[in-house]
Amino acid sequence: MTTDDFPRHSLNCDMGEGYYRWALGPDEELFPLIDFCNVACGFHAGDHNTMLKTVRSAIKHGVRIGAHPGLDDVRGFGRRKLEVTDDEVYAMALYQLGALKAIVEAEGAKVSHVKPHGMLYFIIRDDAAKMRAFMKAQTSIFGTTIPFFGLKGTPHEAVAAEFGVRFIPELFCDIDYDPSGKLLGVPQSHAPTAELIGRKLDRLFSKAETIDIDGNPLPLDAAKGPFTICLHSDMPTAVANVSAAREVVDRYKTAAA
Amino acid sequence: MTTDDFPRHSLNCDMGEGYYRWALGPDEELFPLIDFCNVACGFHAGDHNTMLKTVRSAIKHGVRIGAHPGLDDVRGFGRRKLEVTDDEVYAMALYQLGALKAIVEAEGAKVSHVKPHGMLYFIIRDDAAKMRAFMKAQTSIFGTTIPFFGLKGTPHEAVAAEFGVRFIPELFCDIDYDPSGKLLGVPQSHAPTAELIGRKLDRLFSKAETIDIDGNPLPLDAAKGPFTICLHSDMPTAVANVSAAREVVDRYKTAAA
Amino acid sequence: MTTDDFPRHSLNCDMGEGYYRWALGPDEELFPLIDFCNVACGFHAGDHNTMLKTVRSAIKHGVRIGAHPGLDDVRGFGRRKLEVTDDEVYAMALYQLGALKAIVEAEGAKVSHVKPHGMLYFIIRDDAAKMRAFMKAQTSIFGTTIPFFGLKGTPHEAVAAEFGVRFIPELFCDIDYDPSGKLLGVPQSHAPTAELIGRKLDRLFSKAETIDIDGNPLPLDAAKGPFTICLHSDMPTAVANVSAAREVVDRYKTAAA
Amino acid sequence: MTTDDFPRHSLNCDMGEGYYRWALGPDEELFPLIDFCNVACGFHAGDHNTMLKTVRSAIKHGVRIGAHPGLDDVRGFGRRKLEVTDDEVYAMALYQLGALKAIVEAEGAKVSHVKPHGMLYFIIRDDAAKMRAFMKAQTSIFGTTIPFFGLKGTPHEAVAAEFGVRFIPELFCDIDYDPSGKLLGVPQSHAPTAELIGRKLDRLFSKAETIDIDGNPLPLDAAKGPFTICLHSDMPTAVANVSAAREVVDRYKTAAA
Repeated sequence: MTTDDFPRHSLNCDMGEGYYRWALGPDEELFPLIDFCNVACGFHAGDHNTMLKTVRSAIKHGVRIGAHPGLDDVRGFGRRKLEVTDDEVYAMALYQLGALKAIVEAEGAKVSHVKPHGMLYFIIRDDAAKMRAFMKAQTSIFGTTIPFFGLKGTPHEAVAAEFGVRFIPELFCDIDYDPSGKLLGVPQSHAPTAELIGRKLDRLFSKAETIDIDGNPLPLDAAKGPFTICLHSDMPTAVANVSAAREVVDRYKTAAA
Repeated sequence: MTTDDFPRHSLNCDMGEGYYRWALGPDEELFPLIDFCNVACGFHAGDHNTMLKTVRSAIKHGVRIGAHPGLDDVRGFGRRKLEVTDDEVYAMALYQLGALKAIVEAEGAKVSHVKPHGMLYFIIRDDAAKMRAFMKAQTSIFGTTIPFFGLKGTPHEAVAAEFGVRFIPELFCDIDYDPSGKLLGVPQSHAPTAELIGRKLDRLFSKAETIDIDGNPLPLDAAKGPFTICLHSDMPTAVANVSAAREVVDRYKTAAA
Repeated sequence: MTTDDFPRHSLNCDMGEGYYRWALGPDEELFPLIDFCNVACGFHAGDHNTMLKTVRSAIKHGVRIGAHPGLDDVRGFGRRKLEVTDDEVYAMALYQLGALKAIVEAEGAKVSHVKPHGMLYFIIRDDAAKMRAFMKAQTSIFGTTIPFFGLKGTPHEAVAAEFGVRFIPELFCDIDYDPSGKLLGVPQSHAPTAELIGRKLDRLFSKAETIDIDGNPLPLDAAKGPFTICLHSDMPTAVANVSAAREVVDRYKTAAA
Repeated sequence: MTTDDFPRHSLNCDMGEGYYRWALGPDEELFPLIDFCNVACGFHAGDHNTMLKTVRSAIKHGVRIGAHPGLDDVRGFGRRKLEVTDDEVYAMALYQLGALKAIVEAEGAKVSHVKPHGMLYFIIRDDAAKMRAFMKAQTSIFGTTIPFFGLKGTPHEAVAAEFGVRFIPELFCDIDYDPSGKLLGVPQSHAPTAELIGRKLDRLFSKAETIDIDGNPLPLDAAKGPFTICLHSDMPTAVANVSAAREVVDRYKTAAA
């Protein structure tokens, strides 16, 4: 698969975020609705057995499989602030990306993209040196063959470019942006409805804008080019949310970038 | 590196078996004395940071780096009996081998061999179906380019042959064999001295026999061909043990197989 | 509370079996339906925050709070076979019972009973020495003031008697007994329906017998005295199952033993 | 034991900070040299088996046993910054103190004091609300019968007083104070020698002052009353350090407070 195969617009969900006996999210119901899954790699969630099961499901459903590495913090679900050094980012990325690649390829597929989880995503969004440590790991394993999903206008984008790695901007419709365009976390956002998600996405595709947390229009320049929409699989309304998003994306579907 | 580069006789030690804050074994003192290290991959010991540090030390010392995957059981140090399915063996091998490969290759080296740890070593010695699950993982990642270290005359050897993977028999001199030739564990063995290790290895090289737990000569046919000697890095006398073994191996050093 | 307060017949459920980010079972829906909860103590499930939350819910609902200690095996949910020594049973019981007692009493309640989880329950059912190690821990902490829930006719009952600890037999209606009266695990049992649970319990109260896995009547002598019925909170039909059981127990409710 | 039994000057060391297979510090060599041990309770180090073994050793050596609870962070050894709520501090204190109390009392001894570990020690030093959450847990379990070891002039002291809990100031001689009297961590301090520890303690007893990191005299008012000296058991020179400290303390030994 070359990167040219990437759809101009797509839906991605985090998957395989259970932990041994514990499940999280209705993965089997979501697989038919999405284009890409981001598979947890054992550090914030997931374990080797869950990863194998999730990879097999993704392949069965024809969903492309990305790596979803996180901080080494199961107890905080990879969402707690932890100080990490550049070398630790490099080691945690190598370990998790290498592990997932081995499982995916043994099952006959290829890793399609990389998208970090939770606090790791934010750490390398805000610190270019740490994003470089991450990219050094990613390109050591995958070269420049697979893209990175991240936030436009941040070190995610700039450092990926330095390393020659394709960058795909992520946009969100089930959590909120503040009036300045800053993405808010789940706890700071309003609980979404499927109906609202449909309206926001319709606006995104037709006008390159969304509705901010105060209900006002907010232009999102990233929506003018190719992008991927990330939906949360662990919200109570996840299946309805993703179904609503799927409908809009399919309606606006265009040729691959 | 082709498998032809393998020395006819060699010393290997498990390394990197610390866990975050905790160290185990005098790794830095042992590296100058050994040919191969087996690096713990995070399931029974080791963690991504310890792995990176151990791989860098091995490279600095010119020691070849093998994978040392274990059961998912840090609390039992991978030595407790646990029931695992074939699929679980396959998943745990893929995960750990893939993770170590990524770290070793990012640092500019290659994984030289695979040697499982503790109870996983014994499980796949005794159950050919589980050894097949393991080999399926190993060959998916490494093809047939690197050998497997294991016990002669067991599924280790037979199944490696089925998969076209080179098999290197391991022999032991710091734990005991019973009179029937069965290898005993550390708790069942006498605590070794460096002097006894020297005498046993001398006998191994000169007569293809060792001294069993009762003090009687025991022929070891595996000693007639190429083999590798495994020494424990976590015994109190580890440095003296390995030094004694090094002296004998160097004395009998012959051309590579 | 003295042991005389114990109801002659009661329902108990395992609760608080989530783990940090992950939940398990509809605890909040089940609390209004049960008499006793068995709170996971952190070794097979549960963690200090989940325990505090569960204890507060139980108190709010007027449900009595028992300790539900398990093997030190989160990854196997305390259900895998693990070899443990007597001293390890003693240490794991002390640690978990002491921890739960501290939380319950700080919140103004008392621990009402002890019921081990999964494989620990079976280990001390089958090995009187290990049941003694457990009882030594329980009585060191609680004296003989609280009962032990277990299986009649096993070391559970005999050793509790040795230590002067009240024994309450457990009976089951959402998993199966084989024709010889041996209790089967969840995987070996038929998935229950609420209707079948109602019929089985009706028979239990009216005739001291149940229906075995083959559909034949099976006398259960334990049903002639006081007993407690254990229902699983992690079955998909848990709320319906427990509701059905509640209805039958209330119908036959008699004076406290 | 009443608090009147407390020696006016004493030595305390953290003990039992191994983790399953891994040891940390020469506990058996240190026990003969100290008055109090602080036993790790399983959250930053220690586990139920290590705790039982450590408690038995302490009793054998006549060393009084304190609780050494930490943050729920084995991987960071309880030393990483983690955000915790007041309720989380309360729950983690209850869980760990309750667990240790159960083990100590089952072995026939009593918990003598409480001294938190690493980052938890600092969190409740700097945040009175969190120190209150901790004290609420401690007094729920132990009432006001046992003291808290902490840092004079901080919420440790003030909040202990609010709860009627005796406060024993800790002083340090194997890590450094900066010129303003602020205690520095191990990484920021010079590696100590036994000789320097002897000189510092001599000065502490004779003049109520120490030598700061720059080599200048620094008055320590806390040294004018009763205090306890904390030494690190995991420094390479731990046995020599503690021996040197023991000699000085014994030389100045006075009547119990």
